[in-house]
Amino acid sequence: MTKQTYTLSRIVAELGGEMRGSDIEIAAVKPLAEARAEHIGFLANPKYKSEVHDSKAGAVIVSPKAADEFSGRNLIVAADPYLYFAKVARLFSPIQTASAGVHPTAVVEPSATVPASCEIGANAYIGADTVLGEGCRILANAVVEHGCTLGDETVIHPNAVIYHGCTLGKRVEIHSGAVIGADGFGLAFAGDSWFKIPQTGAVTLGDDVEIGSNSNIDRGAMSDTTVGNGTKIDNQVQIGHNCKIGSHTVIAAKTGISGSVTIGSYCIIGGGVGTVGHIEIADKTTIGGGTSVTHSIKESGQHIAGPFPMQPYKEWAKNTAHIRHLSEMNRRIKELEKTLNIQSIEK
Amino acid sequence: MTKQTYTLSRIVAELGGEMRGSDIEIAAVKPLAEARAEHIGFLANPKYKSEVHDSKAGAVIVSPKAADEFSGRNLIVAADPYLYFAKVARLFSPIQTASAGVHPTAVVEPSATVPASCEIGANAYIGADTVLGEGCRILANAVVEHGCTLGDETVIHPNAVIYHGCTLGKRVEIHSGAVIGADGFGLAFAGDSWFKIPQTGAVTLGDDVEIGSNSNIDRGAMSDTTVGNGTKIDNQVQIGHNCKIGSHTVIAAKTGISGSVTIGSYCIIGGGVGTVGHIEIADKTTIGGGTSVTHSIKESGQHIAGPFPMQPYKEWAKNTAHIRHLSEMNRRIKELEKTLNIQSIEK
Amino acid sequence: MTKQTYTLSRIVAELGGEMRGSDIEIAAVKPLAEARAEHIGFLANPKYKSEVHDSKAGAVIVSPKAADEFSGRNLIVAADPYLYFAKVARLFSPIQTASAGVHPTAVVEPSATVPASCEIGANAYIGADTVLGEGCRILANAVVEHGCTLGDETVIHPNAVIYHGCTLGKRVEIHSGAVIGADGFGLAFAGDSWFKIPQTGAVTLGDDVEIGSNSNIDRGAMSDTTVGNGTKIDNQVQIGHNCKIGSHTVIAAKTGISGSVTIGSYCIIGGGVGTVGHIEIADKTTIGGGTSVTHSIKESGQHIAGPFPMQPYKEWAKNTAHIRHLSEMNRRIKELEKTLNIQSIEK
Repeated sequence: MTKQTYTLSRIVAELGGEMRGSDIEIAAVKPLAEARAEHIGFLANPKYKSEVHDSKAGAVIVSPKAADEFSGRNLIVAADPYLYFAKVARLFSPIQTASAGVHPTAVVEPSATVPASCEIGANAYIGADTVLGEGCRILANAVVEHGCTLGDETVIHPNAVIYHGCTLGKRVEIHSGAVIGADGFGLAFAGDSWFKIPQTGAVTLGDDVEIGSNSNIDRGAMSDTTVGNGTKIDNQVQIGHNCKIGSHTVIAAKTGISGSVTIGSYCIIGGGVGTVGHIEIADKTTIGGGTSVTHSIKESGQHIAGPFPMQPYKEWAKNTAHIRHLSEMNRRIKELEKTLNIQSIEK
Repeated sequence: MTKQTYTLSRIVAELGGEMRGSDIEIAAVKPLAEARAEHIGFLANPKYKSEVHDSKAGAVIVSPKAADEFSGRNLIVAADPYLYFAKVARLFSPIQTASAGVHPTAVVEPSATVPASCEIGANAYIGADTVLGEGCRILANAVVEHGCTLGDETVIHPNAVIYHGCTLGKRVEIHSGAVIGADGFGLAFAGDSWFKIPQTGAVTLGDDVEIGSNSNIDRGAMSDTTVGNGTKIDNQVQIGHNCKIGSHTVIAAKTGISGSVTIGSYCIIGGGVGTVGHIEIADKTTIGGGTSVTHSIKESGQHIAGPFPMQPYKEWAKNTAHIRHLSEMNRRIKELEKTLNIQSIEK
Repeated sequence: MTKQTYTLSRIVAELGGEMRGSDIEIAAVKPLAEARAEHIGFLANPKYKSEVHDSKAGAVIVSPKAADEFSGRNLIVAADPYLYFAKVARLFSPIQTASAGVHPTAVVEPSATVPASCEIGANAYIGADTVLGEGCRILANAVVEHGCTLGDETVIHPNAVIYHGCTLGKRVEIHSGAVIGADGFGLAFAGDSWFKIPQTGAVTLGDDVEIGSNSNIDRGAMSDTTVGNGTKIDNQVQIGHNCKIGSHTVIAAKTGISGSVTIGSYCIIGGGVGTVGHIEIADKTTIGGGTSVTHSIKESGQHIAGPFPMQPYKEWAKNTAHIRHLSEMNRRIKELEKTLNIQSIEK
């Protein structure tokens, strides 16, 4: 199939910004180093200016501040070149809409509601009483158990699973291998064995939520685990039961959030973070990758780092630098003790 | 469907304990803060007593010690309110039994043994020579390869996979995306490339084992990886090949157990723990979340914490507190050196 | 079915090495402690010599150096007993070849190319325009989306997913629950919400790559994420978008590689490692389990350890030992300050 091309003027007509230079035809967005005459690149960080000079890109997206330096080139000048690049990339790769229809090998229980605009893939399964919105795509071998509700244009990728009774908003995207609504880990010790606590809540995801591949959002013990609108969760993330995650929060890969944790909106949580349970993290908190979050973060807007013990980022950077010199610090203490004739009792 | 209700007297008749106050009708178990007149709450930890006073719950499960303080309320008095709550919750959410029958889209190889009491879901697959016990539930799109044996009432959730030759006990529950019996990671270096060591063992899980979503139990290299009766494993846990996990041990989410590790019975292992391989962890060991277990724990009943280096919990708490002050400790050493006219050789 | 047996002389004829003692018949490879008269064991590490003396194994694989000590036993003498053991194990467990044919419940889109030598399992799905090599095995419920290319004899285990447009080499093995080519985690902040950056690259895996169960290799943002020939990746590993992993590198379970990381060839990366993004790791780097890799490793052949801050292994071991004594070091500084009449300002 022939790929769609766009002239610079048409891009600007669709997305705003200002064109400078010739109105050339663009076939794709590419990194500056790989771009050729038919490609558009972008400069998001001024420290990479030299890459623009070296690039063979036919056009470049730059900020108003950087524009004059590249007056000899074809440019689109935009306030936020990174966001603009993302939108141009989306122009070339529009969100795929449903190929309406139920594959003959899919199984849709008779009491399920599946609008004609939905795409149900090969060997997919839709349980009893589940209600899909318009234009949903449930891809090959995905499973949506009984009693679920999915908003319009929600996509479930192959082999993802939605357990019974969960609610997903509009334009939600669940990647392959992700599991929404499996049982939370609740156990009571019964003298000689563990008694499983039934997990009778479910999971509620807001609109525009994306859940990465092989991630888990566990169902609540008595009420729902919830994730707010626009929150984006990367791969292999674990969200324990009863968590309440706010809106427009980002959680990178391999992070684990223990049960009953409340996380605010507009937080940025790095990869490989772990938390204890039953804590609260305020809005707009930034948590560095690998941090062990050991207690609540009550003031919003902080930058926290770890791994342990967790601290404000600046203090953490200052202190952990010394871990590299612990052996040397110990030697210096010994030296001082010798000078003062104090008997070292170092073990 | 109408949800079942229970009077307090019927609950006590089924589960023991002592009723006080009016014999009201209960529709569900709820957290104290959410409970209304038709709900029963519970007080497991005396420090939350004020929540009982504030709660609108129709009845509360309390310990004998706390009962007198709430003499004006409808109560069930039980020795262990948390366990009692779990059992009441189970009363309202009984374990689902199999809807007997093989879905027309499921594939059961002719040599497999599937009792009529089993439920085989849409597009599920049962391999050759596999033998299921009575009342098993193999849900939509789950795969049990050839040569497996499953005990009675074992449940395999959608898209979980049991590789060939594995043995699962009775009432085992495998959540979605979990994989039991994939190859262990065994490689021998052959000069310029890695030669894969065939993994010819399998996995044996005891009765009442639960494996969380997207967790892995790898098959053994030459003999089976084993997990004892009643052991409960949370989501995204990795158990390497040749491990021997005891009975009634609990392992929280995201923990990784390296190959050939032996773990005792009644251990409690937190989330995000990692271990080196080829070590032994004694019975009744408690390991804090995020600990790096770097050597065997031979004495049973210890509480260990980390992340690194791992130590008895109390020492760890004492030492890691100082990481926050390393920069300050370094400054103090410098000050001492200056006072004594020692030339600091700090790098 | 009767298991194949091999005489020692036939093993030597196939794999080289030298036989000593009687030419007995061998039924399996076993650990020395479990081996009986019909089994062959091996001694890879001289420190386990006593296990050979105690073993009931009918024969043992030993190095030339160790051979004389066991002159009374039936031996195969080989330069690398561990590699030799791996090859004998493979003799007893040959790689399974395809049971040619498409299962009637599998869905193969008409434009896909599936040679007659391939095995397509129950309820598996092969998307449009996907091209399989000879002898591929796509097992039950696995999904290969449209536009993929798989080399000869590649195996996709049950419930694994290959997203559209990915390229896999020959003899690649993808374990259950692994997901190749899901979207990388690319977002641009749009003032009040996150704008998803389309991930228009794909994934390219070389020949003889193995990907463990529930692992993820994300598709690139603009060009492919790549993994070189012979690289072996364990379970629950996350490889972010745009990574370039070299050849014959080994990555153990639960490791997370952030986006745009370049890793060389013949690296050995332990379990539970995390990295920051946009760094380079030189060829033949060894990284200890649990290390946080915080910056590029430019010199090849280093042994790095962590968790934090990462350091050459020897320095790390020396320094972290002192974390156990931080509380004591602090006490010693206080003592020195008291002696010198310096007022401690320790917080």
